[in-house]
Amino acid sequence: PGAIDSKCIADNGKPMRCWKDEEDVYFPASFLKKRFDMTGKVGKDGSTFELFTSYAKMRTPETNYDPLGAFGHFSTYSVETRDRVRCISAKTNVPMSTQWDTVPYYYPIQIAQYGLQHYSRLKIENSTRNKSEDDSKNGVILGVKSNEWKGAAGMHETTERLFFNDEEKGKVVNISAGYALANAGAYVYLDKSQNLHVVSFDWKPFDGNASFTVLAKMKQDDLLVLINYVFSEGNGKCVWQEEEKSYDEDIIVQKPRKDGQVSYSYSYVGNAPFGEWSTVTRDVLVDVARALSSGENRKKDDNVVLHPGDLRLVSLGFRGQLTVKQQINQREEQHLHAFRSAADWLVTNQDEKGGWAVPVERSIADRKLVLSPGWHSAMAQGHGISLLTRAYEHLHDVKYLFSAIKALELFKVNSSEGGVRAEFFGNVWYEEYPTTPGSFVLNGFLYSLIGLYDLSKLDVTQNEKSKIQEATDLYSAGIQSLKRLLPLYDTGSGTIYDLRHVFLGSAPNLARWDYHAVHVYLLKWIAGIEKDDFLSKTADRWIGYAYGKRAKHN
Amino acid sequence: PGAIDSKCIADNGKPMRCWKDEEDVYFPASFLKKRFDMTGKVGKDGSTFELFTSYAKMRTPETNYDPLGAFGHFSTYSVETRDRVRCISAKTNVPMSTQWDTVPYYYPIQIAQYGLQHYSRLKIENSTRNKSEDDSKNGVILGVKSNEWKGAAGMHETTERLFFNDEEKGKVVNISAGYALANAGAYVYLDKSQNLHVVSFDWKPFDGNASFTVLAKMKQDDLLVLINYVFSEGNGKCVWQEEEKSYDEDIIVQKPRKDGQVSYSYSYVGNAPFGEWSTVTRDVLVDVARALSSGENRKKDDNVVLHPGDLRLVSLGFRGQLTVKQQINQREEQHLHAFRSAADWLVTNQDEKGGWAVPVERSIADRKLVLSPGWHSAMAQGHGISLLTRAYEHLHDVKYLFSAIKALELFKVNSSEGGVRAEFFGNVWYEEYPTTPGSFVLNGFLYSLIGLYDLSKLDVTQNEKSKIQEATDLYSAGIQSLKRLLPLYDTGSGTIYDLRHVFLGSAPNLARWDYHAVHVYLLKWIAGIEKDDFLSKTADRWIGYAYGKRAKHN
Ligand SMILES: [Ca+2]
Ligand SMILES: [Ca+2]
Repeated sequence: PGAIDSKCIADNGKPMRCWKDEEDVYFPASFLKKRFDMTGKVGKDGSTFELFTSYAKMRTPETNYDPLGAFGHFSTYSVETRDRVRCISAKTNVPMSTQWDTVPYYYPIQIAQYGLQHYSRLKIENSTRNKSEDDSKNGVILGVKSNEWKGAAGMHETTERLFFNDEEKGKVVNISAGYALANAGAYVYLDKSQNLHVVSFDWKPFDGNASFTVLAKMKQDDLLVLINYVFSEGNGKCVWQEEEKSYDEDIIVQKPRKDGQVSYSYSYVGNAPFGEWSTVTRDVLVDVARALSSGENRKKDDNVVLHPGDLRLVSLGFRGQLTVKQQINQREEQHLHAFRSAADWLVTNQDEKGGWAVPVERSIADRKLVLSPGWHSAMAQGHGISLLTRAYEHLHDVKYLFSAIKALELFKVNSSEGGVRAEFFGNVWYEEYPTTPGSFVLNGFLYSLIGLYDLSKLDVTQNEKSKIQEATDLYSAGIQSLKRLLPLYDTGSGTIYDLRHVFLGSAPNLARWDYHAVHVYLLKWIAGIEKDDFLSKTADRWIGYAYGKRAKHN
Repeated sequence: PGAIDSKCIADNGKPMRCWKDEEDVYFPASFLKKRFDMTGKVGKDGSTFELFTSYAKMRTPETNYDPLGAFGHFSTYSVETRDRVRCISAKTNVPMSTQWDTVPYYYPIQIAQYGLQHYSRLKIENSTRNKSEDDSKNGVILGVKSNEWKGAAGMHETTERLFFNDEEKGKVVNISAGYALANAGAYVYLDKSQNLHVVSFDWKPFDGNASFTVLAKMKQDDLLVLINYVFSEGNGKCVWQEEEKSYDEDIIVQKPRKDGQVSYSYSYVGNAPFGEWSTVTRDVLVDVARALSSGENRKKDDNVVLHPGDLRLVSLGFRGQLTVKQQINQREEQHLHAFRSAADWLVTNQDEKGGWAVPVERSIADRKLVLSPGWHSAMAQGHGISLLTRAYEHLHDVKYLFSAIKALELFKVNSSEGGVRAEFFGNVWYEEYPTTPGSFVLNGFLYSLIGLYDLSKLDVTQNEKSKIQEATDLYSAGIQSLKRLLPLYDTGSGTIYDLRHVFLGSAPNLARWDYHAVHVYLLKWIAGIEKDDFLSKTADRWIGYAYGKRAKHN
């Protein structure tokens, strides 16, 4: 017995084709997907069709939280490949964002997440793969022998190569080469193993004409990608494609793309004055991906994500007047470096209020709530503290502790006065977006609580004890609010992202499923810290929502 | 091209039969109905299958609200046929409930709704059908002629019939008949028209043995139903079936059911001392329906609802020692009487706190919240005020005004002290169920606001002006809370019935669709009073939810 072609209507809408058999009437999955925001796909067996309420997987923390250990699930983050991350700055070694502005800017939350991601990987890889925390131990050292250094024969300008054994407590290469990017300069061939995509070296450029170039080869199509790190602000573009020009035939000279080669420039502004030593560490895999994503009329889906194995490094070359240590490190990872860079960025860029201001305007709810450039976020403060407490513990420098403590100040200042503190009908809240009226974003609040918790658990000397107590008090007040207000985020079939609707009088801003998953994860995280049954059961109910369970009606 | 029998799964649940064609996969409507609580039916054309998000129709007030006019949509109410209404008391002429207790009790909210229902019908029928507000004008008068009065010939006891012209300023019938219910006593045949189902007369019973009986005949099956109104508490049963006995053959003598006749007793306790005149008014249609619903092992779906035309009255008989005015009114309705009875009940039964206490325990949320017998409800206070202001205006008796004013007192007393006032994080609320912690039922709160509004709009003399101002202040404070807290009831796809979950830490108690419809109606009602765009737009959005619209996610 087959099915009969039939007609169906839902809520007085347009008629749809349905099928009908002796038992039931059957509605199209496309209707279900649209009407209930469900996701559908053909199952693995190729015949069963599967519908899902949530496209996001609900995860919960696997272990008890250690406030100095890996940060939640951040080891699975990949901040550097997010499409809103324009580049990892070659000056500060932290990400720059284009999320709310086309000109790349520093977004403190992203920077802290980048640091926490790399710290978490460091912790996890150390424990699981038994690697050294010192990035340099996992890789190869190149350029130590003089004959590894090649010149740029037949170029318009010459390259001097001089080797010293005693100066600067190590072997160095003094280079004087034409500074034009067309010039290959002095270069070293790199190791071909695809895992070793991080290069690191010490150099001393003498002026702004110095530059270095990494040449990488894509596995898929043998495309040669040149990344030229130059002393140029690049009109704030961070990374940009060179215009195509035709040059000589030398292997590492730029060629137009049509010849299987493409060239980008990276703004390397430098963190030391000319004539002084500094260390350069670049993850070329990341830099190439950001470069390939940097088209002038770049669209969102132009974002190129590369994985280890997608390219191999070919060479590292230098131009202009400079000295390089005759030791080029080529590594798998740069976790410690990225972690430290992010923590250092926080220390260096903390303002007098103890905050990390966001330099771009942020507007939400159709510009009903607008934050002018320079606003602070409780989530940045919290993440910042979480990173700094780990930096203090891991890197043994009190500057990180002092910075973390200073970051508490804004938790005590109301949003209306430039702080991140708000009240929801008398219940204190720490605002990811300190709008007026308040927006009460749940996930940002939860992250801020974890930051406060991390600091409250730090073992410090008597001098800092009162500040640690402040963190404890701020954390406790926040937890009390959380326990009171959490039910307001529960729709009975999902969660609400924030409470903006209460003061704007609008529809609730429902959390999409990936944010719902964040709510669940964070709630379980804090429930674990607090050993709180209510929080844990709420999270369990929220997990149920993702599988189609719904609260009862009366 | 037909459809192929296929297999489907939702959220990793059990496989279902689905159908598949070249365009889509089709899911069974039974899954949709269960999973999303939808309602389905075959459309009027017999071929289209229709699904509905809400089984309840969304209505909005049709006219601007007049605080002395019809009360919302209450003219469409039928309190007397609700299955939780056991009877309309023959003593007080107001409904008695068995909702939360098997022994019928007075539930003030129900009584006020009963009065407001009849007042609203009075108002609407007056304006649309151009009837007199005086119930007695729409009907017939019987028993005026002496020969309309019949005796019970051949009974064990005799009936004296004596007619006076001058005594008691009208013609009366003095009756002395055997009091046994088997005795037909002195009786009058009633009018056969099916519309005239209300009987009303004045009588003076001399002792508790006096009784009267209405005999009605069901149209459907010619069943004869005897309703005996007796001076008996009937063990609190309100109305109960007589045991079957065999008697003589007289037409209005009880017969066992198998002979096409059934007999019930109604507890008529009387509202005047023996030997004094009082008026009896009974809607026999209602009383018969309540009687037929009164089986000993009555189930919920045993509830019998009768409509005009379902029966006709046969006779009205009297037993025992009594005097009856020789004027039996038979009418279509008793709106004015029911309205007045409810208002009088409120005046008589108001306690020293100004409240109408509920005499039974009320527990909600699996007994997490329990109200002991004697609790007060803001909804009862509000409904009471709405009824009393109308009684004051319509019946011109200040006792109603004083009672309405006294009803304000509990709005100023906190739930914890026996009042109905609560606070939700500092926002005042009037509690339908003044539990600790609060429950914050939305619909009851809205009704209480309307009561306060009704009183605030009353035109009074200087003496009462300050009390009217109190009503205004209580109303304004409530409106302010409403505007602040309303978004908390919005799930983005429906509404929440109350805010109990906030303090119990449970899942939200979602409003089923008929309560959602009540929310919509009340919100539009108050939006109209307030001329408030936010309230009105919220109601519009809530209407959309009933048609499957959902708030956006981020
Ligand atoms: Ca966020
Ligand atoms: Ca109610």
